[in-house]
Amino acid sequence: MTTPPGNHAALLARRARVLAPTYRLFYEQPLQIVRAEGVWMYDDSGRRYLAEQPLQLAEELLATLPRELDSVIFTCTGSEANDLAVRISKAVTGGSGFIVTEFAYHGATEVIAGMSPEDGRPLGPGVYTVAAPLGADGAAAFGERVGRCLERMQADGVRLAAMLVDTIFSSDGVVADPRGFLADAVRKVHEAGGLFIADEVQAGFGRLGEAMWGFARHGIVPDLVTMGKPMGNGHPVAAVAGRAGVFAGFAKGGSYFNTYGGNSVSCATALAVLQVIRDENLLENARRSGEHLMRGLRGLAQRHTAIREVRGAGLFIGVELGANAASGRSGAAETRRVVNGLCRRGVLVGSTGRDGNVLKIRSPLTLELQHADLLLEALDQTLQSPE
Amino acid sequence: MTTPPGNHAALLARRARVLAPTYRLFYEQPLQIVRAEGVWMYDDSGRRYLAEQPLQLAEELLATLPRELDSVIFTCTGSEANDLAVRISKAVTGGSGFIVTEFAYHGATEVIAGMSPEDGRPLGPGVYTVAAPLGADGAAAFGERVGRCLERMQADGVRLAAMLVDTIFSSDGVVADPRGFLADAVRKVHEAGGLFIADEVQAGFGRLGEAMWGFARHGIVPDLVTMGKPMGNGHPVAAVAGRAGVFAGFAKGGSYFNTYGGNSVSCATALAVLQVIRDENLLENARRSGEHLMRGLRGLAQRHTAIREVRGAGLFIGVELGANAASGRSGAAETRRVVNGLCRRGVLVGSTGRDGNVLKIRSPLTLELQHADLLLEALDQTLQSPE
Repeated sequence: MTTPPGNHAALLARRARVLAPTYRLFYEQPLQIVRAEGVWMYDDSGRRYLAEQPLQLAEELLATLPRELDSVIFTCTGSEANDLAVRISKAVTGGSGFIVTEFAYHGATEVIAGMSPEDGRPLGPGVYTVAAPLGADGAAAFGERVGRCLERMQADGVRLAAMLVDTIFSSDGVVADPRGFLADAVRKVHEAGGLFIADEVQAGFGRLGEAMWGFARHGIVPDLVTMGKPMGNGHPVAAVAGRAGVFAGFAKGGSYFNTYGGNSVSCATALAVLQVIRDENLLENARRSGEHLMRGLRGLAQRHTAIREVRGAGLFIGVELGANAASGRSGAAETRRVVNGLCRRGVLVGSTGRDGNVLKIRSPLTLELQHADLLLEALDQTLQSPE
Repeated sequence: MTTPPGNHAALLARRARVLAPTYRLFYEQPLQIVRAEGVWMYDDSGRRYLAEQPLQLAEELLATLPRELDSVIFTCTGSEANDLAVRISKAVTGGSGFIVTEFAYHGATEVIAGMSPEDGRPLGPGVYTVAAPLGADGAAAFGERVGRCLERMQADGVRLAAMLVDTIFSSDGVVADPRGFLADAVRKVHEAGGLFIADEVQAGFGRLGEAMWGFARHGIVPDLVTMGKPMGNGHPVAAVAGRAGVFAGFAKGGSYFNTYGGNSVSCATALAVLQVIRDENLLENARRSGEHLMRGLRGLAQRHTAIREVRGAGLFIGVELGANAASGRSGAAETRRVVNGLCRRGVLVGSTGRDGNVLKIRSPLTLELQHADLLLEALDQTLQSPE
C-alpha cells in the first residue's frame, strides 16, 4: 500500500491507525523526509516510498496478528522491546509485580536482567517465578501454579503488572507442551488485573511451523507481543505490538523515543524478511523439516539411552540428555561434550535448561530434510563416540 | 591490524586485550566464522577479515580514548549502553544511588527513564538530581552542588553507585561552560566510592570540535564512557568503553549477551564512520563551522532582544530565547514559533531545556560555513517576521 505523494493527511491517518500514540510529531506541519545528502534532507516531492516503510512494516506485521492487536512501537533489540513492554504494563495497570518462569531469559537491560533468572543474577523487586510444566504435568498444572503465585503476591501486598513468558519456554529447557497450557494462566492473570506479555523473540516469525506466532498454539491473544532476533535476520530491529487501549494508557504519561527504532533501513530489512518467509514458504518448511527432525531424534532416543526426552515444535527443539552411564558423566557434562562434538562435526547447537542438559536446536528456517539428516547423523556419531 | 589466518591464539589474545571479560566463548575450541550461506557458515579458511571487525572497531575506539579506558562492550543503542553502565556501576560499587542533572535525558529503558527527568516521568528509586551550572556560576558551583547531593544521599542512607551526566549538558539547555566544571564533581564522586559515567551519546565523535570526546574539555577520565547515536551515522550501533577493573568486577557476576551488539555489519558501519571523521577532518570542520556559527548567533543576539544567551561548543549549540515583548509570547511559545518558522525556511533544529526555550542546534558535522550562513539568515528572518 502506498499513499499518493503530498497526501499528508492520508499518511497521518495511516500512521494513527498502526503506530502507537506514543509517537509524536516534531513540527506543526509534519515533514515527510525521503532522502538526504550531506547536510540536506529532501521532502516528498522526490522518492517518497522510503519514509513509508515504517508504516508498511507495521501494517504487514499487524496483518499476521489477531485483530485485537492493532498498533506497533519499534525498538532496536528484543531486550528493548521487553523492557518497553514492562514499562507499559507498569504504567497502565499501576502494578509493579511480574510473573516469569523459573529459568527465564528475556534480555539484558537492568530491569529485564532482574526477570531473567537464567542469567544467575538476583530477581528484581516484585518479580515472582513459576515452574515450567514438567514431564507429567497436564494442561491445568501451569495455570494452577500461576494461581498460587498470584495468591503469594496478594499476600505480599504486590499488585500484578504482567506475566511475561516465552510462548515456548526456551531457557527453561524448550518446553512446548501440553499445547494450550498457557490459556488458563492468562485467564487468571487477566482476572487479577494484569497484562499478558508474549515474548516472541525466539518463537516468533514462523519458527514453530504452524503459525507466525507461538501464542497461537495456546489459543490466546496477548495484550502485548514482543519480537526481535529473527525479525531482521541479522540486523537489529525489534518491536512491541499491542492492544490500542494498552498503548493509549501508556501514551497518557508521555511519548516514547528511540533514535533508531523504526528507521527506514531497519524497516526495509524487516519487510524483506517477511517477504522471504512468504515467498519461500518457510512456515511450511519449518513444519515439515521440524517433524522430520523430531521423528529422527525420537528414533535416536530408542538407541541412545543418554537421550531422556525430545521436546518442541517446528524448528524449535530441545533434546534432554541424562547422565552417561558408560562414562559416568553428568547430564550437563555429557551435553557440553555433545555440543563440542557436534561442533567438530560441523553442526552448531547450543545448550539450555536449568541443569544445562538440554540441546537447543533452533536452526535456520531454511533447514531442509537433507540438512536435518546431517544433524541426526552427527548426533548419532557423537553419542556413540567414546571421546 | 589483521591477524594471520588460522592464528586463533593471536586472535584470542587480541580479543582479551580490547573486549571486556563479560564476553564468553561458546565452544571449547572457538570458531572464527567468516561467511554464511543458507544454513551453512564457514570458518577462517576463507575470507576471515569480516569477523575481525569487532576487534578492529574496539581497537580504533580505544585509540581515541585515554589509556585508562582499555576495553569495550558493544550494544545496539545508546539507551542500552547507559542501561548497561548503570548495571555495571551497581554491581561493582554495591551502591544503588545515582546522580543525574535536573533535566537530564539518558534513554528509554525502564531504569534509564527513571534517570531522565526530561521525560516527565517520576525519578527512579535512589536517583538524585543536581542543577546544571547557571549563567553566573563559577567553575566550583557544580562541584559544590554535587557535594551537597552526596550529603543528602548519605543522610538518606543511600550508597552512591555513579554520577551519570552528558559531557555537555544537552536537555538541561545545552550547558557547556565554564570549561572544566565537571572536574570537582568527579573528584567528589570518586571520593564517595562512586563511578563517573560520561554519556557521550550526543557530545561524542568530534561534535565539540576540539577532541573526539566531550569529557576532554573537563580534563577528566571517566570510569565508563557510553556512546551511540552518531557512532553508526544512521545505523543502530553503540558501546560502553571502560576501565579494565570496572569490567572485571562486573564480569564476576556473569557474562553480558546482546544478540546484535558488535555484529560485523554494525562494526563495519562504525569503522566507516571513524574513517570519514578522519579523512574529512570533521573535528576541525566542527570547530571552524561551530565558531563561525557561534559568532553569527552572537551577532544576531545584538539585534534581536529575543535571544537571551548563546551557549555551546563546536557544533553543539544552544540559543536561549526570552519572551517576545512585541507579541507577548512566552519564551517557550516563541521557541516553538521559531522552530516551525525555521522548518518552513528549510532549517531543521529542535528545542530543549527545562522551560522549552532553547533552540538545540546540533547539525551534521559536515556543515560548512555557507550552510551556517543559511541557518543564520533563516533565523534572522524568522525572528524579524511578525507571524
